[in-house]
Amino acid sequence: MATTQILTIPARRGVAARVTKGQRVKVINTHGSQVVDTWAFSANDVTEWMSMECSRAWFMKLRAALGDTFLTNQRRPILTLVEDTSGGAHDTLMAACDAPRYRLLGVEGHHDNCRDNLHAGLAALGVKVAATPSPLNLFMNIPWTPDGTLAWAEPVSTAGSYAVLRAEMDLVIAFSACPQDVLPINGRTGQTTEAHFSIE
Amino acid sequence: MATTQILTIPARRGVAARVTKGQRVKVINTHGSQVVDTWAFSANDVTEWMSMECSRAWFMKLRAALGDTFLTNQRRPILTLVEDTSGGAHDTLMAACDAPRYRLLGVEGHHDNCRDNLHAGLAALGVKVAATPSPLNLFMNIPWTPDGTLAWAEPVSTAGSYAVLRAEMDLVIAFSACPQDVLPINGRTGQTTEAHFSIE
Repeated sequence: MATTQILTIPARRGVAARVTKGQRVKVINTHGSQVVDTWAFSANDVTEWMSMECSRAWFMKLRAALGDTFLTNQRRPILTLVEDTSGGAHDTLMAACDAPRYRLLGVEGHHDNCRDNLHAGLAALGVKVAATPSPLNLFMNIPWTPDGTLAWAEPVSTAGSYAVLRAEMDLVIAFSACPQDVLPINGRTGQTTEAHFSIE
Repeated sequence: MATTQILTIPARRGVAARVTKGQRVKVINTHGSQVVDTWAFSANDVTEWMSMECSRAWFMKLRAALGDTFLTNQRRPILTLVEDTSGGAHDTLMAACDAPRYRLLGVEGHHDNCRDNLHAGLAALGVKVAATPSPLNLFMNIPWTPDGTLAWAEPVSTAGSYAVLRAEMDLVIAFSACPQDVLPINGRTGQTTEAHFSIE
């Protein structure tokens, strides 16, 4: 019997993996309140990446619903949300955190950040990309009001809940266990934890 | 007496211009229903560009309000919305239209598109950028519902209405008079027109 390997996204760190078309990537919110910034790049040409602005223009929602497909910047299907036990709060609006973001938030010196985690995760696979695409922020709860005001809210996901993304092409997927501990997006305690994933 | 030069964004075409910190860029919706895709790049390093995902995370709205500042992908102020007579429907959510977008919409053969217009406008200034950032879609009306459903709506702007953006750094600004004539974003008639701008 084949067993599925459960891989770790270490707390405050990034990791990337190669995925074949048709495989399912299960992203597990192990401790329940950890945002996981997620990117995907075409395996054949890493300048073709999952694009939040192209995806919103395709599924015509601020957040993907079950069955919705994310598109690349060439408008090709790359990932489809096929299962979700997390409550569905997956943000498409906000940039990955980065060093200048933490300086704006008053942090002095180094702070772990999702942008650096993306590029470190890709580098471990020998992949280099020249920009930082806007991520799919799994488990990140950014509510909007009727007048369009946004907020940094606590997660609605619970321990062990997960989202499953089906690969629509051969791709490189990258994750960052978001190290944001100034805003409450990883829970009010500011605790940042590991998460897990499997490729099935 | 100095007179302000009024420059044309030809129908279905792109144009770019250099702007000095502190100057005001007035974008005029001459015929009232023309979407103008807008980008800005740091004059010193064109890999630093106006970022919709960083801007939303700064002003915490789906759309900028009067006085709100757009940030670059390095989280630095680049443009501030300082005047607006258009009704304020300036989209930050949707990708610029491009050749594969028109293929998805059923168009066969060539269709003018904002992505090509951006790069042609920049090329006329001798500027080359390796990606197509998500644009600020001036006068483009993308309403949302409480559940996050988006729509392609007609403009709310009127002939001669305008938005004024103040430059917060030396920059290159680029515009495309959006050639979208399949969806109703440039008005129900599908007519695409010129627009105008001035740098004061």
